[in-house]
Amino acid sequence: MTSSQAQLEDVKAALTKQGDVVKALKAAKTPKDQIQPEVDKLLALKEQFKQLALADATPKFDRQSLESLLLKRFFYAPSFEIYGGIAGLYDYGPPGCALQNNILALWRQHFVLEEDMLEVECTNLTPEVVLKTSGHVERFADYMVKDTVSGDIFRADHLVKQVLSQRVEDDIKLEAGNAPKPAKGQQPLQPLAPGIRAEYELILETLDNYVGDDLRKLIRRLDIRAPSTGNEVTDPVLFNLMFETQIGPTGQFKGYLRPETAQGHFLNFKRLYEYNTGQVPFASASVGKSFRNEISPRQGLLRVREFTMAEIEHYVDPSNKKHARFEDVRDLVVPLYSAEAQQAAAGPSHISIGEAVSKGVINNETLGYFVARIYLFLIRIGIEPSRLRMRQHMKNEMAHYAQDCWDAEIESSYGWIECVGCADRAAYDLTVHMKKTGEKLVVREALPEPLIEEKWQLEVNKKTFGSTFKKDAKAVQGFIDSMKVGDNWDEEKLQVLKDQLAAGGGKAPVTGTDGKTYELTTDLVTIQKNTVKSHIREYTPSVIEPSFGIGRILYQLLEHSYYRREGDDEARHVLRFPACVAPVKALVVPISHNEEFAPFIKEIVTGLRRGNIANKLDDSGSSIGKRYARNDELGTPFALTVDFQTVQDGTVTLRERDSTKQIREKISVVVDIVKDLVGEKTTWQEVEKTYPAFVQQEV
Amino acid sequence: MTSSQAQLEDVKAALTKQGDVVKALKAAKTPKDQIQPEVDKLLALKEQFKQLALADATPKFDRQSLESLLLKRFFYAPSFEIYGGIAGLYDYGPPGCALQNNILALWRQHFVLEEDMLEVECTNLTPEVVLKTSGHVERFADYMVKDTVSGDIFRADHLVKQVLSQRVEDDIKLEAGNAPKPAKGQQPLQPLAPGIRAEYELILETLDNYVGDDLRKLIRRLDIRAPSTGNEVTDPVLFNLMFETQIGPTGQFKGYLRPETAQGHFLNFKRLYEYNTGQVPFASASVGKSFRNEISPRQGLLRVREFTMAEIEHYVDPSNKKHARFEDVRDLVVPLYSAEAQQAAAGPSHISIGEAVSKGVINNETLGYFVARIYLFLIRIGIEPSRLRMRQHMKNEMAHYAQDCWDAEIESSYGWIECVGCADRAAYDLTVHMKKTGEKLVVREALPEPLIEEKWQLEVNKKTFGSTFKKDAKAVQGFIDSMKVGDNWDEEKLQVLKDQLAAGGGKAPVTGTDGKTYELTTDLVTIQKNTVKSHIREYTPSVIEPSFGIGRILYQLLEHSYYRREGDDEARHVLRFPACVAPVKALVVPISHNEEFAPFIKEIVTGLRRGNIANKLDDSGSSIGKRYARNDELGTPFALTVDFQTVQDGTVTLRERDSTKQIREKISVVVDIVKDLVGEKTTWQEVEKTYPAFVQQEV
Repeated sequence: MTSSQAQLEDVKAALTKQGDVVKALKAAKTPKDQIQPEVDKLLALKEQFKQLALADATPKFDRQSLESLLLKRFFYAPSFEIYGGIAGLYDYGPPGCALQNNILALWRQHFVLEEDMLEVECTNLTPEVVLKTSGHVERFADYMVKDTVSGDIFRADHLVKQVLSQRVEDDIKLEAGNAPKPAKGQQPLQPLAPGIRAEYELILETLDNYVGDDLRKLIRRLDIRAPSTGNEVTDPVLFNLMFETQIGPTGQFKGYLRPETAQGHFLNFKRLYEYNTGQVPFASASVGKSFRNEISPRQGLLRVREFTMAEIEHYVDPSNKKHARFEDVRDLVVPLYSAEAQQAAAGPSHISIGEAVSKGVINNETLGYFVARIYLFLIRIGIEPSRLRMRQHMKNEMAHYAQDCWDAEIESSYGWIECVGCADRAAYDLTVHMKKTGEKLVVREALPEPLIEEKWQLEVNKKTFGSTFKKDAKAVQGFIDSMKVGDNWDEEKLQVLKDQLAAGGGKAPVTGTDGKTYELTTDLVTIQKNTVKSHIREYTPSVIEPSFGIGRILYQLLEHSYYRREGDDEARHVLRFPACVAPVKALVVPISHNEEFAPFIKEIVTGLRRGNIANKLDDSGSSIGKRYARNDELGTPFALTVDFQTVQDGTVTLRERDSTKQIREKISVVVDIVKDLVGEKTTWQEVEKTYPAFVQQEV
Repeated sequence: MTSSQAQLEDVKAALTKQGDVVKALKAAKTPKDQIQPEVDKLLALKEQFKQLALADATPKFDRQSLESLLLKRFFYAPSFEIYGGIAGLYDYGPPGCALQNNILALWRQHFVLEEDMLEVECTNLTPEVVLKTSGHVERFADYMVKDTVSGDIFRADHLVKQVLSQRVEDDIKLEAGNAPKPAKGQQPLQPLAPGIRAEYELILETLDNYVGDDLRKLIRRLDIRAPSTGNEVTDPVLFNLMFETQIGPTGQFKGYLRPETAQGHFLNFKRLYEYNTGQVPFASASVGKSFRNEISPRQGLLRVREFTMAEIEHYVDPSNKKHARFEDVRDLVVPLYSAEAQQAAAGPSHISIGEAVSKGVINNETLGYFVARIYLFLIRIGIEPSRLRMRQHMKNEMAHYAQDCWDAEIESSYGWIECVGCADRAAYDLTVHMKKTGEKLVVREALPEPLIEEKWQLEVNKKTFGSTFKKDAKAVQGFIDSMKVGDNWDEEKLQVLKDQLAAGGGKAPVTGTDGKTYELTTDLVTIQKNTVKSHIREYTPSVIEPSFGIGRILYQLLEHSYYRREGDDEARHVLRFPACVAPVKALVVPISHNEEFAPFIKEIVTGLRRGNIANKLDDSGSSIGKRYARNDELGTPFALTVDFQTVQDGTVTLRERDSTKQIREKISVVVDIVKDLVGEKTTWQEVEKTYPAFVQQEV
């Protein structure tokens, strides 16, 4: 939020409060002269609000203008457009594709290469059992309601938000005396009763807390209806967001498209751990698609049904979450918006990562390290630092198993949007998969000294066991083995059996692996605490998960990069991408069609291509200015111009997009400068200091 | 096929023929002394076959050994392995992932960057209507049969192939006198009747021709049964290979996972054409997943349910398929296996692309250009030239609309496998989408001189039309407009209406856009040929489509790269990847744990990282030899070793994987050499010539 927006919010809140005061006085039939001072205060606030709203509106981001540029230059466009499109699906055209590829290449460099992460690529198709175990089949769902007459579908929380926001907005307008005229046949707006606006505002802020029957009651109590028809809506029902399909021809193998890449990492933990020769901590990384069948996708690339994610799973000893490279980021100051600060509505604080960890604001060093690295990555690709914050999840936002969670939120015309999540998922996922499959997803560490522990164990009395069950012994043994996870007993399960035996007077019915029921007795099995000496420490690692929504980051970057060049006759649109992510790095323009330019153009293009610098030759007949402008719209940072002086002395001009300043040097020198600029080995400021400016009227 | 294999096949064919001769003579009760010379010939052939089979068996590829290496080093592994896995789904581990990323990076360099192709990224989710139009809903299917008792499922053609191949093989063994003993309760093998083996062999070669009822009859006539149970199978039914799902919460929007990336390109044709400022030819390119619900996936990465494709769609004027860069490949000699040569079982010919195009073996220059570029790409990433051929599709293999089609086939232990397809799809896809949507997917070219053509057109008699239909005029006009594609009349549709009018004595019932029926008469509309003068030529471009199965290429490359180092005590496995695709380019090994080595290691690692060279530090306690061996298994081409001499003079050794030769130079020199080797700017042979060999006993 900008400071003027914050001020506006403050005045809005005061206005609501003061409105209630006046309403209450009126309701209590207070004499007019006693009300008047409060009414005056109200009027003053209204005036202040109007002025501020006016001021705030001026620099409003022109989203429509950006969007038409993005469509025109085919950064992206709705998929299946010629068939009418499908909500929430977008195709990337050449510049969008290149931008995404560049962001991903930097991501691999910044995270995977830099930290020797183990990259994996897992399938999108996922069998049901995996996502049942992970909890997605049960819990990966949103509430949905239907217009009872038209059948239109809404995501329940979005509908409540839309309706209540509209009511609050209408009430403010009414109060300010500029209520819209009611449509034909509609009643004019009525002011909200005292206290109601404040209640709505509270609900809007805590909407995430309304689930199940609370949500249904809320919808009924506030009479939430479909906005365009005014019809009632059905009770909210949960709608699972995963796309379902059948794997194989028999139709028996239910599967889903993965909603995240994470589960694939976890299932491969054992192979990855071995690949890393048993050393912990280490991280896996993956770039790929994920799928969410959003109820009503909107906000362009911000809420889509198919999207690219880049996820890291960092495995670490739960009893030691220190990070070897923490020193590298200790002093980095980052805007941290802690849960506590959010509760106090205090706004983010700029403090160092070191301080945040030592004060316990961030749970541990490893989490802090990644919070810092994520911040640095986003800045590096061109996100504006002033519109980036790391926000901690409130307790009620986090999964029950999560230790701590921070989102990188980026501000755009849609508000503050979560673009990267960084959660400490503890040992949850590895544990549930291990329990379900019996596969040991653990780290084994030789202990410097043997560890002596008390552990619940089960012992079979081999003599009586075999003679009691005879040919069924295997089936009963199978039941007993099912209480183990790897080499270890599941102590919870043992406890259940022990309790059953106690309750049954030393007898308990159990189900063998053949499905039949058998009777276990305390003569056959002994469950007791034993002293166990171990030389190996075995533990399930905690997982710190930085998870990047690439499409969201890309869209926010587009907004942050967009500006109009001032002082031009016609509005010129520019995307100020850093060179490292720009789709095309260098434009090559001959000043006119001339045979003599050909060898110089070839020299430039070959040189750039050899240096792996994406370039574009524009030898169309348009004026130089027009050609520059066209490439400003693609965010091309540099332009090399071949003119008649080139033919004489082999020099070309190099123009920088944002400053529009130029230098003039030999082709090989200019090509090398561009390579260094793109490779982040120098900056344009440095180049301007080193080489004399070349001044010439733009044609 | 190697030449020894070809010889083996020849002898096998002769053996079959001679067997039939002898059988026929015996059946005709020919006197024994007259049969004997033919029996002698048969025996001689059998002996020759035995010897050849023995010789051929010796260098047989040890696939199991490679596969265990790939699993051990986690190149790839079955997905969801700890849950028992799912056939046809594989996850790539770190080296597999890096190998694939490198192949794709080179693909982008070799095709996209080199030819300024327009990269797009389209969604996997695809609505039904698109795939209905493209023909996939109707035709993208395989025949499936079920074991009538067990319910086991088979792909019908695979089952026929398996059963008949087994019968032929058994017969050969029987003839050679080494038939396997029949299992308990089974009848001993009986020799096939004369002519049957040859018939089976013919069927095996032409299996693709059996579809629909022919396939059913074949299965019944030859009594094809489920091999493991001996049960009959059901009649073959078509099974669509696309994964189906529902898009959106209403359950009304049927969709599929795309079976190829191509349709996404076509739907975006108009935007791409505009992005390319209306210039043709141009190409779009895309890398992404595709999905095929194989009936019974097998052969590892060669037949899977989810896979990475890289596809190019090159749009070209159908009346001019010349290629601007054809000169670059004209003299390239490529092993071409033309349809004609296949018919004559003549084997591939090595001829130049120029000759192939000029003789009409390859349909046109553009197709020839891509056949050459595909060949060069595959060689560049390390496919053995002797095991690579470009095979033309036979007429019956091609889609009806295809002009010509060539596959890059790579040989491995699974035989010759199609890894890249290169088809001239003509204007098929753009045409069907244009017809369905009415969107003009065409190229418009200003004509040097106006073109005068005779065209069928429809004219509405405005006077009578309006007064006849009044308020319904719009609905009827809608029907008339539906006979247009863009600005042009669909001449087929006009012809149908004209015929209807003629048949109905000047009257024809038509359906308006409101669903009601109206009567058109020859008073209301006139359909006739007019002379039209146009200044613009409008055409639907032809599409040449090189389509790469990345997983298949990757597996074949693994087989071609694998060898065992000779002369070692223990078998040492090596993958001889070219440096440009190797997952890790350089191993960094200190000869022992020593504090003094640290700064040198840091210098090397930093230098390599700055040059974007993927490297791996192995400072484990294992012997140098073991550490080299471990990285031979990953295909790491270079190793830099830090030893005590490094501390004295700052030099390190550089070892090449396959020759195991070494040189010794300053760190900065060695780092630069590695960069040049990886960037394909020099070769190890060059390096050996330039720098003195360093000879030292390996530890």
